[in-house]
Amino acid sequence: MKKKVLKFGGTSVGSIDRIQHVANIIKSEVEAGNKIIAVVSAMAGKTNELIEYSQAIDKNFDKRELDVLLSTGEQVTSSLLAGALVNLNIKSKSWLNWQIPILTEGEHTNARILNMNVSKINQYLKEGVAIVPGFQGVSKIGDITTIGRGGSDATAVAIAKLLNADTCEIYTDVDGVYSTDPNKIPVAKKIEKISYDEMLELSSLGAKVMQSSAVQTAMMYDIPLEVRSTFTNRKGTKIFDQQEIDYSKSVTGVAYSKDDAKITLTGVEDKPGVAANIFEPLNKAQINVDMVIQNISSDQNTTDITFTIKRDDLSKTKDILKDNQNIVYKEITHNDKVSKVSIVGAGMVSTPGVTYRMFRGLADEKINILAISTSEIKLSVIINEENTLKAVKKLHTIFELD
Amino acid sequence: MKKKVLKFGGTSVGSIDRIQHVANIIKSEVEAGNKIIAVVSAMAGKTNELIEYSQAIDKNFDKRELDVLLSTGEQVTSSLLAGALVNLNIKSKSWLNWQIPILTEGEHTNARILNMNVSKINQYLKEGVAIVPGFQGVSKIGDITTIGRGGSDATAVAIAKLLNADTCEIYTDVDGVYSTDPNKIPVAKKIEKISYDEMLELSSLGAKVMQSSAVQTAMMYDIPLEVRSTFTNRKGTKIFDQQEIDYSKSVTGVAYSKDDAKITLTGVEDKPGVAANIFEPLNKAQINVDMVIQNISSDQNTTDITFTIKRDDLSKTKDILKDNQNIVYKEITHNDKVSKVSIVGAGMVSTPGVTYRMFRGLADEKINILAISTSEIKLSVIINEENTLKAVKKLHTIFELD
Repeated sequence: MKKKVLKFGGTSVGSIDRIQHVANIIKSEVEAGNKIIAVVSAMAGKTNELIEYSQAIDKNFDKRELDVLLSTGEQVTSSLLAGALVNLNIKSKSWLNWQIPILTEGEHTNARILNMNVSKINQYLKEGVAIVPGFQGVSKIGDITTIGRGGSDATAVAIAKLLNADTCEIYTDVDGVYSTDPNKIPVAKKIEKISYDEMLELSSLGAKVMQSSAVQTAMMYDIPLEVRSTFTNRKGTKIFDQQEIDYSKSVTGVAYSKDDAKITLTGVEDKPGVAANIFEPLNKAQINVDMVIQNISSDQNTTDITFTIKRDDLSKTKDILKDNQNIVYKEITHNDKVSKVSIVGAGMVSTPGVTYRMFRGLADEKINILAISTSEIKLSVIINEENTLKAVKKLHTIFELD
Repeated sequence: MKKKVLKFGGTSVGSIDRIQHVANIIKSEVEAGNKIIAVVSAMAGKTNELIEYSQAIDKNFDKRELDVLLSTGEQVTSSLLAGALVNLNIKSKSWLNWQIPILTEGEHTNARILNMNVSKINQYLKEGVAIVPGFQGVSKIGDITTIGRGGSDATAVAIAKLLNADTCEIYTDVDGVYSTDPNKIPVAKKIEKISYDEMLELSSLGAKVMQSSAVQTAMMYDIPLEVRSTFTNRKGTKIFDQQEIDYSKSVTGVAYSKDDAKITLTGVEDKPGVAANIFEPLNKAQINVDMVIQNISSDQNTTDITFTIKRDDLSKTKDILKDNQNIVYKEITHNDKVSKVSIVGAGMVSTPGVTYRMFRGLADEKINILAISTSEIKLSVIINEENTLKAVKKLHTIFELD
């Protein structure tokens, strides 16, 4: 008998048929003797519909009321799923966040889960399946809140932690985490086990399987996760603590991002505070700066700073740099057709030659490296966008992921 | 300064434009110095959409979860209206039933409002407009309930009573209560003032302006009502205690129902318990029996019993009568093309000759009366359906309602 938190995303509950299918998944779990808490998202498309209503009234729709509005999406799914279970003769009840309660702190539309009363749910699990709407909570003064980053994934992980569940399973429309994008690289393989750190790197590099902040929470509290498909019976990907994984391969996955642009400022004064002066106004303008690389220039008193941004932000970024009175530089150059290709693997740090093999592989394909950035478990290069898939395929092969 | 409960029905809040229009109505009330509690229905069509979802899962969808599901309809409208008021710089908050709370008793989907905590709302009315979802409440154990009969009208009237409001205004898609159906009888006139009793008779006779049980509650607690249009500025119809109305006319309105059928059992044994034996199985089969008339037959030991039902129920009713072993009768006859035409007026009782004038008027039009039923403030006749509009027009004229 295990206590399991199962989370079902928007596409998994996107129609009545799918909700009934989810009810059958839960029924099997109950029949296997497990205690189930299901955390559900709004039916696919419903949250956007509600946001459109609010936007038609006011582009800056009142945030307290936006939370009241949006929370209905998950409430609808919760009641339909509970009713579908009752129809299958499985005892079940929806538990709205204020009925538990799940307490949050922080501002409307961007709250964080603080705590929950576990006694009522634990009591109820002795007799039935508890369905909990994800992505929301109640503030100390009894207002409905929604949680910003992480959404329903974060709710599932937080509940798993607070209820001391054995496992947290994220049911979604893909059947796990892949070594690279299976839609583009057919030899991509599903990863059976991955560490929290690697999952975080892959998430932030564009693998949209799970929300990063939920992975962070799971890592912090050492909650075993499993990502699996609602639509197949195949095994998913288990996400563990690094120490529990036996790394046979140095590299776990290859990720890539597109639509990037690269900007280089040459001849920048080499003195403290220069980087802050460059990036502060970009941050204020909500331009997301990704990789930053600084090299010493040939001239000993100046340096070159390169960074990447989304291509859409290129002209705005250049304007801000040109208007910036606090920085001195020789020239701004840019390349608006670049991509970032990364290898990720917790085993990299203990495997000699990974860096060399990556560079050698790209050289064999005559792919020029425009910039390099490394971390403990990740190695990213910026290359011309036209070479993206060629690079991903090559790296996938040389690190034996095919 | 008045404390007003304003209720807006489904068509009044049926789109974003209409919700913004309602926000402007409320804004005018606030600027006139009034304290406003707005009770809202779900946007037109939304409740049916949610019911369809539940029916697709289970024809007998779990009632507790149905209440959780349906309550989201009014919650959506409440948050959108509160946000629309904030956008007009009017301070406003949605108050969900559990946040107040509004306590109910009775079973799911058919609960009754028992009480509410008035202190929080009264406190909030000092600073802003309170928006309350209609048609729902919370049970003593903290479950969401919906109230059966009366819906959002009943919520508005109950809140008006519990908050000791000065008035309760029902905004709807017609601009008041008419002397008869204005769509069919163009000379129909809007009634300026009407008593609770008359309104109840007209409601039960098919005028769908307000839900009967809400009128009953208002009558019981003497809460002044006003029915008015969301879409025009015209005065509506005020619904008062009878004693406060000066009756210049004996008859207030003419109502009619269509699609009726009439059944007569002749030669029924005239002994106690016969009527019960006839109607009990019909009640069990959920056949709604409307008028019942019993005459002594020419044969002194037997009687004739006539009653009306909806035409759709005719064959089922005849089958049940034929299968009924507990009744003895000579013959079953029926007429499946009849209608009921009624005159309603609190002044009837004190005006001699109303009955005679009605019968004379119908005779002048050569309309045969098939059955008659009277109450304190109502006189109904069954006639052949083809004569319905002719009868209504004639009665409208002779009682000076044109």
